Amino acid sequence: MTYAAVTSEVVARLGTLVGEENLSTAQAVLDLHAHDQSFHAPHRGEVVVWPQTGEQVAEVLRLANSLLIPVTPWGVGTSLEGNPIPLHGGILLSLERMKRIIEVHADDFQVTVEPGIGHKDLNAHLARFGLFFAPDPGANASIGGMLANNAAGIRTVRYGASKDNVLQMRVALADGRLIRVGSRSVKQSAGYDLLHLFVGSEGTLGVITEATLKLHAVTEYMGAALAAFQTVADAVQAVVAIRGSGLDPAALEFIDAAHAAMLREAEGVNLTDHPTLFMEFHAAHTDALAMNLAMVQEICADLDAVHFHATTDAAERRKLWHARHASYEISVRQFPGKKLYLGDVSVPISAYPELIGYIEQVREECAVPLYLIGHAGDGNIHVEMPYETDAEYARCADINARIVRKAQDLNGTATGEHGVGLGKAKYMRYEHGEALDVMQAIKQTLDPNNILNPGKIFPHDIG
Amino acid sequence: MTYAAVTSEVVARLGTLVGEENLSTAQAVLDLHAHDQSFHAPHRGEVVVWPQTGEQVAEVLRLANSLLIPVTPWGVGTSLEGNPIPLHGGILLSLERMKRIIEVHADDFQVTVEPGIGHKDLNAHLARFGLFFAPDPGANASIGGMLANNAAGIRTVRYGASKDNVLQMRVALADGRLIRVGSRSVKQSAGYDLLHLFVGSEGTLGVITEATLKLHAVTEYMGAALAAFQTVADAVQAVVAIRGSGLDPAALEFIDAAHAAMLREAEGVNLTDHPTLFMEFHAAHTDALAMNLAMVQEICADLDAVHFHATTDAAERRKLWHARHASYEISVRQFPGKKLYLGDVSVPISAYPELIGYIEQVREECAVPLYLIGHAGDGNIHVEMPYETDAEYARCADINARIVRKAQDLNGTATGEHGVGLGKAKYMRYEHGEALDVMQAIKQTLDPNNILNPGKIFPHDIG
Repeated sequence: MTYAAVTSEVVARLGTLVGEENLSTAQAVLDLHAHDQSFHAPHRGEVVVWPQTGEQVAEVLRLANSLLIPVTPWGVGTSLEGNPIPLHGGILLSLERMKRIIEVHADDFQVTVEPGIGHKDLNAHLARFGLFFAPDPGANASIGGMLANNAAGIRTVRYGASKDNVLQMRVALADGRLIRVGSRSVKQSAGYDLLHLFVGSEGTLGVITEATLKLHAVTEYMGAALAAFQTVADAVQAVVAIRGSGLDPAALEFIDAAHAAMLREAEGVNLTDHPTLFMEFHAAHTDALAMNLAMVQEICADLDAVHFHATTDAAERRKLWHARHASYEISVRQFPGKKLYLGDVSVPISAYPELIGYIEQVREECAVPLYLIGHAGDGNIHVEMPYETDAEYARCADINARIVRKAQDLNGTATGEHGVGLGKAKYMRYEHGEALDVMQAIKQTLDPNNILNPGKIFPHDIG
Repeated sequence: MTYAAVTSEVVARLGTLVGEENLSTAQAVLDLHAHDQSFHAPHRGEVVVWPQTGEQVAEVLRLANSLLIPVTPWGVGTSLEGNPIPLHGGILLSLERMKRIIEVHADDFQVTVEPGIGHKDLNAHLARFGLFFAPDPGANASIGGMLANNAAGIRTVRYGASKDNVLQMRVALADGRLIRVGSRSVKQSAGYDLLHLFVGSEGTLGVITEATLKLHAVTEYMGAALAAFQTVADAVQAVVAIRGSGLDPAALEFIDAAHAAMLREAEGVNLTDHPTLFMEFHAAHTDALAMNLAMVQEICADLDAVHFHATTDAAERRKLWHARHASYEISVRQFPGKKLYLGDVSVPISAYPELIGYIEQVREECAVPLYLIGHAGDGNIHVEMPYETDAEYARCADINARIVRKAQDLNGTATGEHGVGLGKAKYMRYEHGEALDVMQAIKQTLDPNNILNPGKIFPHDIG
């Protein structure tokens, strides 16, 4: 595919569509939108546009499609696999100025929003209704970006990923059509599920211009627990036991001894040098919460926990979770001048012990700095590997490839929540087999000129 | 599209693929597979084949595709919208002989099955593991049929529909490819969500040959409650209040006064002639269950319930639920010589009072026998209208069309759980707008010869 350049005439036409004040070709602006929070090399688009409405998004796509100019949608740039990097230049389509809350449907536990709003900003607004949007990837990611990547985070174990928390979307297609997919009815069996086809498609099939999200009632009774174990194997066995107990934790997170030490030193959290589980429980009554915490303590004691601490104190809980929430940024800060190679594999929970055991073995063999932090309740683990030189990068990539293959062989996936982006495309054939051809055929049907976020997801499409 | 006939040569080739003992052209067999449980007119296929493996399914499709012979997949025939009626003849592809439980992954709360197994048979097997598959449409529907129609039923309000309870499937495509979609990892953000594209596609995009399902732990503490109200408006307000209370009922069902009387007379259930709610609650502790039932009683009392009864006695609960479970069959038996026109609209819960009010108004205007029964917790309502003559049928169809339009205008859907099948295709354009063209484009991409269950879902495709 040969793309056309964004000429001054194209810029003028875009200005007519979105308004002169809503586009920029300034180098500083292009640079700001040339990279996400991942280790992937930046690449600049040729123009940044900030449409104000779904109709404007559709018109920009229609124009780009007619001229064969690539379009890369942009939420707020917090993704972790290079998903919104405009690899082929062209138009960087930012949704940052479409951040209205269109309507709170409080009786339906739903809210309709524009894609540019951050999930933290949304939840701040929803608090007055006693409601919240559950998926929480840590950073203040935009709702549109979360849906496009099917982001998940720490509460997925109880509330599901982004795909489980959306009911309806408006989507602009490559050819400028603006369609509505899904339904505000929580039940719908009316033809193909296009909603979930667009969720997680990373902007390669269409651009989300509006979304109606499922909400949950804010829980009044919340407790947190922290358990440290002698060995990783014990900690991981506790994860399996807690998942099997019916306790339904709202979060069930794992960090290894090295990561625990890092968080303690950086944030003063009371952690020992042991593999550690962070847990959160939500309950309808205070008694039920106390019973849950007691049951968890028992499970952890049975698995020889060396340390267990539970709290229902809100301030203490928040401090504990702050360390977990900010762990990625803390990790980055620990290695000034270095980048962080980040993995994201996920497996069925029964395979988690074997996966973690394998990663530990690789770490030992390769003698590299490698930190483990993961959404253990979902079988999802992130390896973090600081690197500086090209040789170190190559070693990280090689280690990650081995871990990905192991996860895939354990009936798992190369990516639990960060999406394919730039880094995972090469693993898709092994993961999907001929189903990858079906994905490609759908891409070809909906975006025959391959203008939408080209270079992502499909291995042969890497530019 | 002109299809080819199933000649004796074709029958012979099919026999080679699946074995002579696994096909039939006997009229009695064709008749048995010519209709589902709906009011739709029967139509015979030309041959019934019972493949034994996914590979055989794929080979049958490959052959049919090369010869332009339509193929209609068949679960067990309990669907309610004509979904598996072989409208264009051809091959009736029954999955009834593929009913193995391939593996119970107890630690993962998962099971892998062939599509022909009934969900009740599956749950009988799973009981020994303390696990169950939650979606329950009433009849002993096959898992494959439930997934193909995205069936739901009484427990959807808590556990979701079929689409929410499946992780991975093998699917045979029209051209004979056999692909795997989804992942046994509960988290996956690795490309397009083909899993949910095939779920609910009613056999028009592919044939499900294997599925890995999500399971839940069998609940030890279960309670039921029954509440009768003076008016439909009060009952429906109670539904909205219970949904908003955070009580998380496992079932929340509504029947109108006429239907309550019918169930009482047919089954001896202790029901009065009032709009009535059936509810079920699952809890982790007996105290929590008692607290839930007390809270529900309070909500119902606030809305002037004329009768309230709660029980934690298992036998009593089962008797109560038997009447609700068998209500469709009971309704059919009440009108010997008549058929039952059945609706299936669904709306956001806040719109439920207006929808029900509208239906009552239509009933009054038209002076027709019309019974209301629905999964109120999901905003889903079924109207049942007995009819005999063509004129009565036309009147039912007209009334249903008005109700569908009303539901769609209330941000709802023509079908909450029965699927589009034969009867709802004409409503799809209004419901989906241009998104219907996207569905059609995907159909064209995956089944260019339109051999898979032709005549379903798409309005212009009705033969």
